[in-house]
Amino acid sequence: MSDIRTQNLQKPVTVAEYLFRRLNQIGIRSVHGVPGDFNLVALDYVPKAGLKWVGSVNELNAAYAADGYARAKGISALVTTFGVGELSAINGIAGAFSEHVPVIHIVGCPSTISQRNGMLLHHTLGNGDFHVFANMSEHISCDVAKLVKPSEIAAQIDHAIRECWVRSRPVYIWLPTDMVEKKIEGARLDQDIDLSEPENDKDREDYVVDVVLKYLHAAKNPVVLVDACAIRHRVTEEINKLIEKTKLPVFVTPMGKGAFDETSEHYGGVYAGTGSLPEVSKRVEGSDLVLSIGAIKSDFNTAGFSYHTSQLNTIDLHSDHCTVRYSEYPGVAMRGVLRKVTERVDVYKLSVTPSPQVENAVSENKDDSQTITQAWFWPRVGEYFQEGDVVVTETGTSNFGIWESKFPKNVLGVTQVLWGSIGWSVGATQGAALAVKDLGQDRRTILFVGDGSFQLTCQEVSTMMKHNLRVTIFLIYNEGFTIERYIHGMEADYNDIIRWNYTDIPAVFGAKEGHAQKFVIKTKDELEKLLKDKDFNEFKGLQFVELWMPKDDAPRALKLTAEISAKNNSRIEDEQ
Amino acid sequence: MSDIRTQNLQKPVTVAEYLFRRLNQIGIRSVHGVPGDFNLVALDYVPKAGLKWVGSVNELNAAYAADGYARAKGISALVTTFGVGELSAINGIAGAFSEHVPVIHIVGCPSTISQRNGMLLHHTLGNGDFHVFANMSEHISCDVAKLVKPSEIAAQIDHAIRECWVRSRPVYIWLPTDMVEKKIEGARLDQDIDLSEPENDKDREDYVVDVVLKYLHAAKNPVVLVDACAIRHRVTEEINKLIEKTKLPVFVTPMGKGAFDETSEHYGGVYAGTGSLPEVSKRVEGSDLVLSIGAIKSDFNTAGFSYHTSQLNTIDLHSDHCTVRYSEYPGVAMRGVLRKVTERVDVYKLSVTPSPQVENAVSENKDDSQTITQAWFWPRVGEYFQEGDVVVTETGTSNFGIWESKFPKNVLGVTQVLWGSIGWSVGATQGAALAVKDLGQDRRTILFVGDGSFQLTCQEVSTMMKHNLRVTIFLIYNEGFTIERYIHGMEADYNDIIRWNYTDIPAVFGAKEGHAQKFVIKTKDELEKLLKDKDFNEFKGLQFVELWMPKDDAPRALKLTAEISAKNNSRIEDEQ
Ligand SMILES: Cc1ncc(C[n+]2csc(CCOP(=O)(O)OP(=O)(O)O)c2C)c(N)n1
Ligand SMILES: Cc1ncc(C[n+]2csc(CCOP(=O)(O)OP(=O)(O)O)c2C)c(N)n1
Ligand SMILES: [Mg+2]
Ligand SMILES: [Mg+2]
Repeated sequence: MSDIRTQNLQKPVTVAEYLFRRLNQIGIRSVHGVPGDFNLVALDYVPKAGLKWVGSVNELNAAYAADGYARAKGISALVTTFGVGELSAINGIAGAFSEHVPVIHIVGCPSTISQRNGMLLHHTLGNGDFHVFANMSEHISCDVAKLVKPSEIAAQIDHAIRECWVRSRPVYIWLPTDMVEKKIEGARLDQDIDLSEPENDKDREDYVVDVVLKYLHAAKNPVVLVDACAIRHRVTEEINKLIEKTKLPVFVTPMGKGAFDETSEHYGGVYAGTGSLPEVSKRVEGSDLVLSIGAIKSDFNTAGFSYHTSQLNTIDLHSDHCTVRYSEYPGVAMRGVLRKVTERVDVYKLSVTPSPQVENAVSENKDDSQTITQAWFWPRVGEYFQEGDVVVTETGTSNFGIWESKFPKNVLGVTQVLWGSIGWSVGATQGAALAVKDLGQDRRTILFVGDGSFQLTCQEVSTMMKHNLRVTIFLIYNEGFTIERYIHGMEADYNDIIRWNYTDIPAVFGAKEGHAQKFVIKTKDELEKLLKDKDFNEFKGLQFVELWMPKDDAPRALKLTAEISAKNNSRIEDEQ
Repeated sequence: MSDIRTQNLQKPVTVAEYLFRRLNQIGIRSVHGVPGDFNLVALDYVPKAGLKWVGSVNELNAAYAADGYARAKGISALVTTFGVGELSAINGIAGAFSEHVPVIHIVGCPSTISQRNGMLLHHTLGNGDFHVFANMSEHISCDVAKLVKPSEIAAQIDHAIRECWVRSRPVYIWLPTDMVEKKIEGARLDQDIDLSEPENDKDREDYVVDVVLKYLHAAKNPVVLVDACAIRHRVTEEINKLIEKTKLPVFVTPMGKGAFDETSEHYGGVYAGTGSLPEVSKRVEGSDLVLSIGAIKSDFNTAGFSYHTSQLNTIDLHSDHCTVRYSEYPGVAMRGVLRKVTERVDVYKLSVTPSPQVENAVSENKDDSQTITQAWFWPRVGEYFQEGDVVVTETGTSNFGIWESKFPKNVLGVTQVLWGSIGWSVGATQGAALAVKDLGQDRRTILFVGDGSFQLTCQEVSTMMKHNLRVTIFLIYNEGFTIERYIHGMEADYNDIIRWNYTDIPAVFGAKEGHAQKFVIKTKDELEKLLKDKDFNEFKGLQFVELWMPKDDAPRALKLTAEISAKNNSRIEDEQ
């Protein structure tokens, strides 16, 4: 075992130790996942590297949670076992890929010796193909590192982690059982992995900056529109500096919500085409220059492609290219451009118009009934939010309703509008709350989830309690898939679900005495009382609120979007 | 819309109607799955085709349940939505592929028009690639049918269903929203799909039969060993006829358990190498001719590759080839060979030795304590089983313990030994119980599941109750992953799990008054009483039994297998 190569190592460490210490170095403190015989020995090294093992209830939830953790803490890791574990997680990883979330997926797999011998092992397809699952993951990973040669492993790990961070997308690390304890060079650990983004080519960058400034200086009523990739590719600080200097009005898309301080006088609201409030669409669509940062113009992020803006009035800054009107600049990344634009902009040449006022329109949306309507609810919880809250919403009414809630300062918005996998939010909430805890912050994590979505991943509540997380869950009890009803089948059976005794969930999944509270809220008055209750606002454990809302009620923007989706789905061309 | 082609149709039907009527024709009565906007319109046609929509709690459970349904009813179908739904199910489908279970996976996907226009839709990776998920599924499907051209769709559907059945593996059907209601030729429906297996080439088949008979007639103590593919490829009737005529001793592997009547005098027990009872391994390994039918010699099916049989004494019959000693006969399928061997065997030339006696060794394994030991438990439940029971076991102690239970007549054994994805059994139980109900049979479906495995997919209990299924769940409460402890980390935290209030699960997930019962069983006496209780035996609803067993106790065969697995995982070669 101690061959020449091992003897030549300055500070020999095992592969597992190397890997997990690297995770620690980049800020990860908790590792999600489920054990399996192909990863057990590796798991022994998790605590040794100063990391906490989460011990997830299943792999899909673990992947969702890793996604949430990365959104709150920058990056995350997930360990699964070959075949059964990794494929259970794959939908969660695909979501992270789609939404630009950096998750390191480590898969414990059979030893290279068993592979070479083509052994008919459990968790295989029985056909001797050990690469088939990695091949599937390749489609949703920005790097695949198969650790099979000790002399290359340290470099492979460092490269994978760097790719994950810089490209802000999942990577896949394949760890055979016989590599786990191989010795590699630990001296490399003395130097942090270089996570800096590659610089833009200076000339090209300057050229783009000049073009941007030319249009910016010439525009009569320019606006800034911030979208998901601004958050995912970490340019919110650059945006803050730009606005501080320019005082331009800032709007966010649904996926960009939370990227900019909504209490700022420069904040103008959520823009999503015809799904926006009238003052917002008037301002954005009436602008002669939309500086769009990190856009993902997907159907649900644009209320069904309902933007009424023109590319002729648009500058699009992205993580890997920029587009000014119709001119494209591949390879020019937004960070450098934003910095230089901020540096070089001539504020005296700017024409700045004030932003629309953004308020939680509670009284405007209050009716005489005690029914908790979608229209009233979202502005009302806007008032309940506090500085620093983490607010998670799910595909369904909540993802559209939240547009109507104004956030206090430093609220982290967590939503999965593009991938839209239901059940995700429950896992993501656990992950985000754990990240906040790992950061040593005492923030509230607040989830709004539909009754339909909750059923897919309910057992994640168990993990929240296991780690004593501070989470408040608002379960929107509206008897099924309201979002789907608005797309097709308002009364169809398949949009109904079984009624659970939701509020008993914490108790069943292991709530400890005094660590969990439950509430059933059916009226406006009950909700008012709850939201003002001191104990409810300050409780440190898990709170579960079953919130009754009408089956056939949906936020305004959802109704619009659903109609357009239904049309797209059913559009027919002539027979071919 | 009514173009020339549509006008030329004799009996125009929509694609969705055609598809679902085909499912009905081949014996499917319930369709598993979860709605999504890309499959909603198709779902309208489910009841119209005389099918029941299950309305699963999530897609992975749905896939597991479809797997269980197919095992009990021959074939099954699952509907998911593009991306998020299909990827959530993919681990379940991979299991069906691995274990030769015919599941038709129908994926509702975006309209061909949206695809052609490269629209940035929800549930995509945001990169305009609409084929990426189908490409993943291709690895685990024996046919992929993308329904995009109406004139070809009927033939594609028929072909996919035929492949699914004949090859006994999953197929993937890709149904864009704009194809759902296209009109195709319904007249084809008047003729059933040809599901007959292709015949063997007569001369090759005769040749193999001659060789088999030569060895069979010459053997001194031949035995028959029945494995999984005998069940999956539906040759159990052929085996019965062979044994009826020859009276040869029959053994089954763990994956083949249930394939042969265990009350028959010819039945000799479970063979799994060193994992077998001594009389069994003596008989099988002492035999000079093992006629092995449908073998899958995987690690967990052979107690860690511990067969002591020689290929020189073995005839292997498979669904797509046969092997006699070292001679291979590709393309010669077992059914034809078995039939002709039965027909032509000369019983006077056979040397038949009696089978070992198989009994539930209850008293032999009883100790003085009240502790419910693994050794005592499994023979004891063997006595509790009744004719016709469906018995489901999970990866963990139960999959190995069940070897020690003798089944009454017509018991269907359901286990996933090769793929071994935990949580599977809970879904599979729902599917199998529903299949039994769809068959109009009043059989008991009995699940043995570890506490660890149960946590992954617990919400499937909700679906069991929604459909009023007759299910008894024995949850083995042993504080975590005992099987993993035996492989690595006997005391490791990662093998512990949170204690749930398991018996409250039915109530939380919507049990109706009188439809569910719960029990906590900690002692041998309590278990004795329960298993003899008339009401417990005859109850028609859901029963949940929390069964306390020691954390560090495992069936004999599991201990052996775990040790060998651990060795395989850690085997190290010299540095390369
Ligand atoms: C994994 C997955 N399966 C299916 C869907 C399709 N889908 C989207 S929203 C939805 C219903 C959500 O219902 P609920 O959570 O109750 O939301 P609400 O009633 O508030 O609209 C479904 C089934 C999906 N997006 N993801
Ligand atoms: C989806 C999946 N994840 C992880 C594993 C690895 N694994 C195999 S058995 C097992 C533990 C099962 O524990 P339990 O169900 O309690 O069984 P028992 O205690 O009876 O052995 C685990 C985690 C797996 N097989 N499948
Ligand atoms: Mg709902
Ligand atoms: Mg257990």
